[in-house]
Amino acid sequence: MSSMYAFALGLATVGQNGEVIEAWYPEPSVDIDAKSGDVIVSALAAAGVDCGNANTSCKLDAAALTSLAASNCSLAATARAMQGSKRQPIAVILHNDSKPGSVAEAYLKLQLISHRLKRPHEQNLDGIFACLPNLAWTSEGPVEIDALPARQLEARAEGRWLKVNSVDKFPPMTDYVVPDGVRIAHTARVRLGAYIGAGTTIMHEGFVNFNAGTLGTSMVEGRISAGVVVGEGSDLGGGSSTMGTLSGGGNVVIAVGENCLLGANAGVGIGLGDRCIVEAGLYVTAGTKVALLDDAGQLVREVKARELSGQSDLLFRRNSSTGAVECKTNRSKVALNEALHANN
Amino acid sequence: MSSMYAFALGLATVGQNGEVIEAWYPEPSVDIDAKSGDVIVSALAAAGVDCGNANTSCKLDAAALTSLAASNCSLAATARAMQGSKRQPIAVILHNDSKPGSVAEAYLKLQLISHRLKRPHEQNLDGIFACLPNLAWTSEGPVEIDALPARQLEARAEGRWLKVNSVDKFPPMTDYVVPDGVRIAHTARVRLGAYIGAGTTIMHEGFVNFNAGTLGTSMVEGRISAGVVVGEGSDLGGGSSTMGTLSGGGNVVIAVGENCLLGANAGVGIGLGDRCIVEAGLYVTAGTKVALLDDAGQLVREVKARELSGQSDLLFRRNSSTGAVECKTNRSKVALNEALHANN
Amino acid sequence: MSSMYAFALGLATVGQNGEVIEAWYPEPSVDIDAKSGDVIVSALAAAGVDCGNANTSCKLDAAALTSLAASNCSLAATARAMQGSKRQPIAVILHNDSKPGSVAEAYLKLQLISHRLKRPHEQNLDGIFACLPNLAWTSEGPVEIDALPARQLEARAEGRWLKVNSVDKFPPMTDYVVPDGVRIAHTARVRLGAYIGAGTTIMHEGFVNFNAGTLGTSMVEGRISAGVVVGEGSDLGGGSSTMGTLSGGGNVVIAVGENCLLGANAGVGIGLGDRCIVEAGLYVTAGTKVALLDDAGQLVREVKARELSGQSDLLFRRNSSTGAVECKTNRSKVALNEALHANN
Repeated sequence: MSSMYAFALGLATVGQNGEVIEAWYPEPSVDIDAKSGDVIVSALAAAGVDCGNANTSCKLDAAALTSLAASNCSLAATARAMQGSKRQPIAVILHNDSKPGSVAEAYLKLQLISHRLKRPHEQNLDGIFACLPNLAWTSEGPVEIDALPARQLEARAEGRWLKVNSVDKFPPMTDYVVPDGVRIAHTARVRLGAYIGAGTTIMHEGFVNFNAGTLGTSMVEGRISAGVVVGEGSDLGGGSSTMGTLSGGGNVVIAVGENCLLGANAGVGIGLGDRCIVEAGLYVTAGTKVALLDDAGQLVREVKARELSGQSDLLFRRNSSTGAVECKTNRSKVALNEALHANN
Repeated sequence: MSSMYAFALGLATVGQNGEVIEAWYPEPSVDIDAKSGDVIVSALAAAGVDCGNANTSCKLDAAALTSLAASNCSLAATARAMQGSKRQPIAVILHNDSKPGSVAEAYLKLQLISHRLKRPHEQNLDGIFACLPNLAWTSEGPVEIDALPARQLEARAEGRWLKVNSVDKFPPMTDYVVPDGVRIAHTARVRLGAYIGAGTTIMHEGFVNFNAGTLGTSMVEGRISAGVVVGEGSDLGGGSSTMGTLSGGGNVVIAVGENCLLGANAGVGIGLGDRCIVEAGLYVTAGTKVALLDDAGQLVREVKARELSGQSDLLFRRNSSTGAVECKTNRSKVALNEALHANN
Repeated sequence: MSSMYAFALGLATVGQNGEVIEAWYPEPSVDIDAKSGDVIVSALAAAGVDCGNANTSCKLDAAALTSLAASNCSLAATARAMQGSKRQPIAVILHNDSKPGSVAEAYLKLQLISHRLKRPHEQNLDGIFACLPNLAWTSEGPVEIDALPARQLEARAEGRWLKVNSVDKFPPMTDYVVPDGVRIAHTARVRLGAYIGAGTTIMHEGFVNFNAGTLGTSMVEGRISAGVVVGEGSDLGGGSSTMGTLSGGGNVVIAVGENCLLGANAGVGIGLGDRCIVEAGLYVTAGTKVALLDDAGQLVREVKARELSGQSDLLFRRNSSTGAVECKTNRSKVALNEALHANN
């Protein structure tokens, strides 16, 4: 019985020493039931690939591809399309959600998020930075850094222009998959491993790191840091910032709820519940002292912003007469009143 | 008598169903007088194209191009250059400034702005979002989203790197036209339909949406939202923000006058007249309460910033001792004094 | 005796009138001693190139390359690699650090910084803007602006997509050199002439102008303006800003010391010493009035921020209750106490 966490056929870039440095999977699949898994394992076995019991990946030679292409397995069509490829065909078998153990596994897990097959935080990505080689992403594909100077010389001499678009461990998402129903005005700012909900528009100033993203409709003109998830209907204004956990933001994973608005050039170092607004230009860090105001505009008490993290129906602003950061109920009916009057 | 609003020959990308999904016009013309219009109409008629009375566009086959190329019309040279093209030659005839009715018309109207033949807000662009298909803008040109996975697989298999630079309804301006006298350090951030005045430098952090731009010399390191127009001599500092009308900024179209300075990371949700300064890091929204100060630094009165919208010679800053947003006259001689003392 | 400031063989792009408009040097060398210089001068003389006494550059024809390739000089290997090149081989000889006098010289000096052979401010770059032509940087290489429309038409007609990535005097650094030990998530935002220290990561929102950069390990998600240098261990948060001297920032060259943190969306118009923090969202300009606080949080005195420029161990924040910009000692032991109590 071979249920699987995930499986994919892919085309990989191979480095100077023959190892896989990058991989792309046109049709990854997840949560494969035992019956479907058995079919895949059998087809691979017939092609000479032993799936074993541990997560694994392997290169497929022409004979293996031919065997898979002739199988009655769901992956036959993909195998056929890969025959004769100038990039290296591979197979990745993930029996379980262990931390990624190879470049091929890491790329598959990132792609699962961007294909919306797994949500941010739903997978074990421990150690993924160490898995991923830092590559020069050129107009001719990924190139190992130490191989780049020779490639640049060769391209110049042959009259081509070898453009280096990024030097990074993570490539842009859209060179791997463009999920349904999105616009991404500048794809260089959305990393593979981002989860972009249907209905989301990422404008030029928007940014989405890996293992982060929007769950539904959103207008994103701000920065969604690693690990940050934004709920349905929330907008991030131009140049707005969400603190991530990789650097600077501590170890609290920030979430933004539904129907929130982060104003232009605003920022949060705390989580937001639903229907919250942070005024344009205001940065609310966890340590910001906030004057909680009741519906009459009277001070209830002063709190650190971190005490308000994740609460709904809050409006944060800086009083433009006194300079004090204030928080009041965004809509009169809702949860904040409880927060305002708790401990009164 | 055939005066025309605009006319152009173009080369178009055709989608899977044969329809035009994108078009480029090397030499669009506008405000064509009756005599010149008659020559064009006649040349097109001879080529088998009926210009009719309504705005229209049509594909040109080899015979039509040959006919146009042989005419004594101003478009003969362009027609000759298009003979044998691998992209689809088309003609667009706009008798009037009705809202765009097709992809070809929408692209022409956007290009008219970027060629500086029409200013922002000077044309009817109603419904242009609905006209424009969302496309994957790849290193091999625009591709329909549902055709992208097959193209990605094909490119990988053939050893090419198909880069998706954006997924958007609007392409970058400079793939269509680079107007005279500009520098644009990062073209991905200037949409087709932007109007970039001669003498303008758009730095890497600058951004210009469609139907927006600079009228003359400017240094732009901030974001010019849809509809926003910036006057001669004004600078937008790094990361500065102007609120647009498409999302978040209400329905007031913001203009920035001449010789203004938006400081780095500053922002405005109101219009500025001439010779205004907004201090670095300050966001002035329409609802910001502003303390108007006279030349002696005394409070005249407190107003909402929207009351100051469009006025000249204002300096906005946040008092770094009191936190209050203040406004005083930027230069002693000018209009603000009147504003300061009105209603005294 | 021919000691030299710098020497390089390169491959150049030649414009419509035959002049060099851009150049790339695979292995530039600096501070060449007299003995090594004599070998180069001799090899060039044998190849028909007169190095003279003034800084100079010249095109190398096939015969000259053949001669150099056969020499026992260190540049023989590079010369061999350039034989048959479709771009123009050139040699640049800089006897001294005079201001750049040609395109070839300007590109060499910029590359010297990006190769980490010279630090920012270490070279004479006077007049470099005037040296550098404004070019359209396309997917097929640099193109003169007035030649672009014809190239666009040709590319469209032939079915290629000629992408214009920037229109600028400075190209992106990584199309010339990727120094060791860096990640640059979005290379369009790092200009040739940037100095990126080993261990630095430039995230998507980071930016580095020419003659500026990081000296060691840094996480850069903000903007390093022209001339700004950031010390070992300092982090620039997302969207943070450093004022440059080219526009807006006056004539004080800003430096950020070691182990500093500029918070997200923060900014500085003053220099920072070591171990300084500027709170997220706070912009400290030279004219900002700052309340200096002692370790008990009591006001010592109020100063203009420019008086604190370059001092170490400062923490800048805006008091979120009073709106006042405050400065206190970042770590209790250090220099700020002296600053706080000076003039008491």
